[in-house]
Amino acid sequence: MSNPERAPRALTGGPGPACSLPVRIYYHHTDAGGVVYHGRYLDFMEAARIELLNGLGLDLASLAERDHVLFMVYRMEVDYHRPARLNDLLTVGAAIARVGRVRLDFEQQVRRGAELLVSGKVLAACVDPRSFRPTALPEPLRLRLQHR
Amino acid sequence: MSNPERAPRALTGGPGPACSLPVRIYYHHTDAGGVVYHGRYLDFMEAARIELLNGLGLDLASLAERDHVLFMVYRMEVDYHRPARLNDLLTVGAAIARVGRVRLDFEQQVRRGAELLVSGKVLAACVDPRSFRPTALPEPLRLRLQHR
Amino acid sequence: MSNPERAPRALTGGPGPACSLPVRIYYHHTDAGGVVYHGRYLDFMEAARIELLNGLGLDLASLAERDHVLFMVYRMEVDYHRPARLNDLLTVGAAIARVGRVRLDFEQQVRRGAELLVSGKVLAACVDPRSFRPTALPEPLRLRLQHR
Amino acid sequence: MSNPERAPRALTGGPGPACSLPVRIYYHHTDAGGVVYHGRYLDFMEAARIELLNGLGLDLASLAERDHVLFMVYRMEVDYHRPARLNDLLTVGAAIARVGRVRLDFEQQVRRGAELLVSGKVLAACVDPRSFRPTALPEPLRLRLQHR
Repeated sequence: MSNPERAPRALTGGPGPACSLPVRIYYHHTDAGGVVYHGRYLDFMEAARIELLNGLGLDLASLAERDHVLFMVYRMEVDYHRPARLNDLLTVGAAIARVGRVRLDFEQQVRRGAELLVSGKVLAACVDPRSFRPTALPEPLRLRLQHR
Repeated sequence: MSNPERAPRALTGGPGPACSLPVRIYYHHTDAGGVVYHGRYLDFMEAARIELLNGLGLDLASLAERDHVLFMVYRMEVDYHRPARLNDLLTVGAAIARVGRVRLDFEQQVRRGAELLVSGKVLAACVDPRSFRPTALPEPLRLRLQHR
Repeated sequence: MSNPERAPRALTGGPGPACSLPVRIYYHHTDAGGVVYHGRYLDFMEAARIELLNGLGLDLASLAERDHVLFMVYRMEVDYHRPARLNDLLTVGAAIARVGRVRLDFEQQVRRGAELLVSGKVLAACVDPRSFRPTALPEPLRLRLQHR
Repeated sequence: MSNPERAPRALTGGPGPACSLPVRIYYHHTDAGGVVYHGRYLDFMEAARIELLNGLGLDLASLAERDHVLFMVYRMEVDYHRPARLNDLLTVGAAIARVGRVRLDFEQQVRRGAELLVSGKVLAACVDPRSFRPTALPEPLRLRLQHR
């Protein structure tokens, strides 16, 4: 069996907690242009953000159910530098750039080895999952997001 | 503007209520093989089933919320006869093949003009959306599904 | 059958050629938050851009094969204002904002009736589909994109 | 960081070469029913088949380009036993059930721990990627698929 190192890794240094997730490119990620479809990178980036939060002990499923806290993306900026192809093994990074009262900003990168393929800024807000209205990040949550 | 006929149409004749939905193929449906990715047809088939139910006055969103009724697919058989390509205009059909106490069976086809590209059987069951346990189809619902 | 008006419509006025595409929300567009998954809007936006180009007589499939011209998205900015839900009927707009030597910029909106749900800027570049290197837009293409 | 064991593993015993791939459930896999969307399992199953072939030294990208060999799914049977939810860690298995002159049959399972969630049969055929016509599996390929 091929053995890509698949466990997400914590990154040290940098502005805040960070995580790096390996992603293999399969047919369902690609399009008829022969490369990864541009929308699919948002799935990879979501995966890396969830693994980053999981790594901080924040389980989004129980946050939504028990604490009525949901993170909604309200703005994305994505730059596509180079295309990825079938069977490539990519590394998808997520780092917390800023923790506000309601907001949570991420910086993200997708790399193939040392090559930067995609970079993005993802701005999320804490909302109540029943009303989708913005709500303050619960204090214990904010603390965990700010400290490593 | 190109003007594909986009409104779902009721089909007459056949074993039960039926519906036909036009679908244009975009990049996000295709893969690096240059054709539509096999899993994407399940999305087209789901769309045609929902339009069929909508056409019978069954709004799945309010069924789930108000009546605690959710249809879950529990078996699919799909045959892929010919590939579809970028910019093709397909017709996706859904017909109710059988209405049971809990079950709802669909027959589905995807065509490009007269050509049959994909055919499938989709077996769904009525479940409670809170427990995912099978539950009997509410009587008024069953009647609407059986009669045209 | 329900009868949403499904044919893409040309929009008049505004800075350049434009198109508006109706999209119904199905289960495969939504996520466990109960609303449309943020990445799925990129598929809707791609669909509206392709229908806009189709409406101008530009078939991307034959452009790629015959003319070796492929449009690659190289930057996106997306703002999410309000969530969409299962069975909503949305309108996805695409307008050409700027035609450069290599670049093609789009402005896009997703609406539910008069309500603005999502807005975005999509910057695409003309590349050779074999090398993915930027290439000038063929002159006849540029003319068609600039004039209504 | 959470540390799910992410490397695909070869399975011993059984009827033929097999592979097992860990998959974490993210928002983009789920739908408004609160569980994984039924079509998404086809992506997981495709991923496990590709990792199985990768593990046998068969790189699909170069097979398509150099050897003009593409595997097309021509029939699927999928049984859904139990739903998966956000943040679940699943194991997706793929085993080669039969190697024919043109055909390649797979047996697949998706599990959460010991619980079987989804099982499927996937029948693929070897086709020429230019014509999509069936073609015999190249002899060296067939040998590698038959022997462990």
